[in-house]
Amino acid sequence: MVLLIHHPVSAASRKVRIIMAEKRMLFVLKEEEPWKPSQDLYKLNPSGEVPVFVFDGNVIAGNYAITEFLEEVNREIRLMPADPKQKAEVRRLIEWFDVKFMREVNRNIVYEKVHKRFGFGNPPDSKILKIGINNLNFHLEYIDWLAERRNYLAGDDFSLADITAACRLSTIWATFRGTATKTPSCGIRK
Amino acid sequence: MVLLIHHPVSAASRKVRIIMAEKRMLFVLKEEEPWKPSQDLYKLNPSGEVPVFVFDGNVIAGNYAITEFLEEVNREIRLMPADPKQKAEVRRLIEWFDVKFMREVNRNIVYEKVHKRFGFGNPPDSKILKIGINNLNFHLEYIDWLAERRNYLAGDDFSLADITAACRLSTIWATFRGTATKTPSCGIRK
Repeated sequence: MVLLIHHPVSAASRKVRIIMAEKRMLFVLKEEEPWKPSQDLYKLNPSGEVPVFVFDGNVIAGNYAITEFLEEVNREIRLMPADPKQKAEVRRLIEWFDVKFMREVNRNIVYEKVHKRFGFGNPPDSKILKIGINNLNFHLEYIDWLAERRNYLAGDDFSLADITAACRLSTIWATFRGTATKTPSCGIRK
Repeated sequence: MVLLIHHPVSAASRKVRIIMAEKRMLFVLKEEEPWKPSQDLYKLNPSGEVPVFVFDGNVIAGNYAITEFLEEVNREIRLMPADPKQKAEVRRLIEWFDVKFMREVNRNIVYEKVHKRFGFGNPPDSKILKIGINNLNFHLEYIDWLAERRNYLAGDDFSLADITAACRLSTIWATFRGTATKTPSCGIRK
């Protein structure tokens, strides 16, 4: 069995779900709440974080390890260019969205509006939300700048950079629409 | 010319310096202050962050892209196992230290004591420092747990997981010793 432990509010989980769908993999989803990780999740991933990918008794844990693993073992449908320098541009943008966008936008918006509410029953801090929205505008301008110069974010072809950016943005939209804890149907093949 | 733009307080810069030293590469260092990125740095890396690796007119920017690029193009001295599942364990631990340890320890200690002082002339917040030190103890226990069961952090062999952990820890020690802005001599070959 191929199992993906995920949560819809986790942009990294969305990313892995879409990668698996793009690579035409069959898998079953199991949901874990990021604000209340179960003992089962800690046994599979000591950080207590999603996504976790389980297949044939093997466990691959975390955004970085799963993304690279799926790209390495499933070579029929590639989501990174073959050239190492072009691949570096894809990875630069993956880091941009998974680290910089996460720190400047996701933590200020998604954490404030979703994690704080579901995890602790607290309301969001409007000052922090405002910082997140200002930062979001800067990131949208950068995406715009790239989109004017390239076919896709990292160059001529669709890649993991586009998937990563789309998933970060989709958690933000879902947060504002109040649907961040609902699994969207995209990226699921059963 | 092979150039690495770095700063001693950046654990990711330390990591790349050590990877390049392990792989017996010759390179020149150029320092950029993380709290005051120059226009030159923004031209090479739009995020304004170090490390940036420059060679023969090519630019590879950021921790993730540089680490994977150096491992891919320089195969004589390998810092990751060949098996994809073992590689995933190395990457799980790289993410542990670069993301989880960074968020729970580095930001609470190094940012408070170094970035705030040099960047804004502000003193550290002792409550935040205390949270960082408590979190550090949890991470040291996890390193202990791994060290009791394995030769190296990710398994039988020395890998990028050990280098990443060592660099995260070394920025913490240097911060407490007051030497975080001085380049240590380890990892430099000229």
